[in-house]
Amino acid sequence: MSQFDASPAAILARLIRCPSVTPIEGGALGELEEMLIPLGFRVERPVFSDTNTPDVENLLAFSGDKGPHLAFAGHTDVVPAGPDSDWQHPPFAAVIENGELFGRGAVDMKGGIACFVAALARIQAREGRLPGRISLIVTGDEEGPSINGTEKLLRFAAGKGLSFDACLVGEPTNPDALGDMIKIGRRGSVSGTVTVEGRQGHVAYPHLAENPVRGLATLLDGLLARPLDAGNERFQATNLEVTMLDAGGNTSFNVIPARAAASFNVRFNDEWTPESLMAEIVARLDAAATDLRLRPGRSEPIRYRLAWRERPSDVFLTRNDALIGVLAAAVETVTGRRPALSTSGGTSDARFIKDYCPVVEFGLVGRTMHMANERVALSDLETLTEIYDLFITRWFAAHA
Amino acid sequence: MSQFDASPAAILARLIRCPSVTPIEGGALGELEEMLIPLGFRVERPVFSDTNTPDVENLLAFSGDKGPHLAFAGHTDVVPAGPDSDWQHPPFAAVIENGELFGRGAVDMKGGIACFVAALARIQAREGRLPGRISLIVTGDEEGPSINGTEKLLRFAAGKGLSFDACLVGEPTNPDALGDMIKIGRRGSVSGTVTVEGRQGHVAYPHLAENPVRGLATLLDGLLARPLDAGNERFQATNLEVTMLDAGGNTSFNVIPARAAASFNVRFNDEWTPESLMAEIVARLDAAATDLRLRPGRSEPIRYRLAWRERPSDVFLTRNDALIGVLAAAVETVTGRRPALSTSGGTSDARFIKDYCPVVEFGLVGRTMHMANERVALSDLETLTEIYDLFITRWFAAHA
Ligand SMILES: [Zn+2]
Ligand SMILES: [Zn+2]
Repeated sequence: MSQFDASPAAILARLIRCPSVTPIEGGALGELEEMLIPLGFRVERPVFSDTNTPDVENLLAFSGDKGPHLAFAGHTDVVPAGPDSDWQHPPFAAVIENGELFGRGAVDMKGGIACFVAALARIQAREGRLPGRISLIVTGDEEGPSINGTEKLLRFAAGKGLSFDACLVGEPTNPDALGDMIKIGRRGSVSGTVTVEGRQGHVAYPHLAENPVRGLATLLDGLLARPLDAGNERFQATNLEVTMLDAGGNTSFNVIPARAAASFNVRFNDEWTPESLMAEIVARLDAAATDLRLRPGRSEPIRYRLAWRERPSDVFLTRNDALIGVLAAAVETVTGRRPALSTSGGTSDARFIKDYCPVVEFGLVGRTMHMANERVALSDLETLTEIYDLFITRWFAAHA
Repeated sequence: MSQFDASPAAILARLIRCPSVTPIEGGALGELEEMLIPLGFRVERPVFSDTNTPDVENLLAFSGDKGPHLAFAGHTDVVPAGPDSDWQHPPFAAVIENGELFGRGAVDMKGGIACFVAALARIQAREGRLPGRISLIVTGDEEGPSINGTEKLLRFAAGKGLSFDACLVGEPTNPDALGDMIKIGRRGSVSGTVTVEGRQGHVAYPHLAENPVRGLATLLDGLLARPLDAGNERFQATNLEVTMLDAGGNTSFNVIPARAAASFNVRFNDEWTPESLMAEIVARLDAAATDLRLRPGRSEPIRYRLAWRERPSDVFLTRNDALIGVLAAAVETVTGRRPALSTSGGTSDARFIKDYCPVVEFGLVGRTMHMANERVALSDLETLTEIYDLFITRWFAAHA
């Protein structure tokens, strides 16, 4: 029997009151540990570190020693709250007003964690014990660089002999209302910076200089001219966005800059691997750099450098129909709505988990995430707890 | 009779030892005043001010009260010296080594001023008096924003009833050797910033955002596609250079920027006025913004803003053959070389003077200007003094 107020709102309030702005633990993992131990979990709190990034605390909790193994993954770190004055209620006070609980992390994603813990408490209270094996993989490095978080925690779990049959990620997946959407995959992400080298000089003496901006514009035209693909029934189209521009830091109207750079990000679908996509980008840049028809009066290729940002994210699509089916049915049973099975939106830590077991994502409504006045309806907390309860119960029943 | 060592090297050393880094007077105009008074000049030291710019000291000196009126224009302010460690000799010490005088401003353009004052002293010593009317228009705001300098000093002189028949500017005009080049005009200069407005968003949700970079690239292509002209026998071709790029200050690979901007400068010849050139640029931008063939899948024009930088410089060409002929002949007599009559290079304060009288420019060799170890050969100081002496003498003789 649990020895704490296991309503999802009470659990969430305890977590919100820990100001765990990434990468600070802020007491949030400690609260979680205190709740999981009475539920019968063994809890590890590994700290991971790396050069150039802060140390980050993580939590691995596991219960049971035989039977199918279900994992739940999430994060207690939150994005900064911004100025208090933008908030109706202080961001770490967990104030309830008109049936909504306010606070940074309310939906992204302390709320999802609270509902999962509440569901476990209900199952234990109802059944007297938890089924099979259950693990919680909770990081403090999801909103930050994600270097000392889920990826290392999964390796850590594997090192302890834990292997999972399926994983549910509790990120907010619903655009508007609970029941909208389950995520069954995510596009990949690759970023890079292309730099054209010129020769600095004064605008009045252009023959002594070489302006790199014209070459950069030509390369960008080459990158953007044709769509990378048209998308398919599983994924949106692959899309490239130029996100940053820089003319060698030049701040004078009279100076021809020494170099010009553009940074870009590509979100790509399952028609690509990171490697094939990077090769295509290089091919497009090379073609634009050497196509002299594009540059009347020029006789040599554009000299450019391409620097890939570290750690592209691979695309993935979960094809485990049992896992997806059980979750979708639980959502529909509780909400009366049939959730869309989507691969849209940004990346999540599911990109690491997919290398270990089938993974799906379902959580709260994301509308206020990362904004001032992030908040969750108390009724949504209750509904998500019911969905998680039903999903856990049915998933173990199906794997019995 | 002058009461100071009127060799050009001695005058120049006195001026270099005043650290008159723009906009600081540094004692340089005071030294000049002390030299000009014994030569019979009346000296005014007006200080000009403006919002957003520092107050700047200037000097207007005039001698004589009848006859033709010759002006000499220059500046005592200098660009910063940079680290002392980059210099063989301290930048404000006026050290002579191997026949060269080292110091910031040695050629740009305390050296030109020193030679003109030395020429006046020689004429006075030789003739007993200075011919006709002579004015010196010397500012401390040429290397800075040029707002509290020559332009206001010319108005100040006009307010005192001074009007000039011709003006010689003592800027360094020779690329390699004394006698190379007289400047008889300058291209104009216009600067602007074009900004495309988009809608900020996350790269994973491009349909909720609008990336302004693609539109900016299209506008730049439109600006750069065709040369503005081919130049003519008087002037180099008009040339546009993109000098700065900015994607709304964005610093994240994952953010579609809210806006994207490019700044540019055009150096233009006498086939344009500032107004006709600005109209052409607007026409090119509008054409690129509304040509939907350039942007498959788009149905509305690119929304852009164009901000002109204040105060374009007009192009000018001096057509006073007497002035040019007398100066060119003096250069050839002294150096044995026939100087090119050029309109190349950057702008100078001659752009203000041309509204008052015919103006030409001839000074020292510019090779080390604005660099560490700026320096002038003592023999060049002597040669330029002889040229100025001969020019002044012959110009007044021609106008007697
Ligand atoms: Zn999250
Ligand atoms: Zn100068």
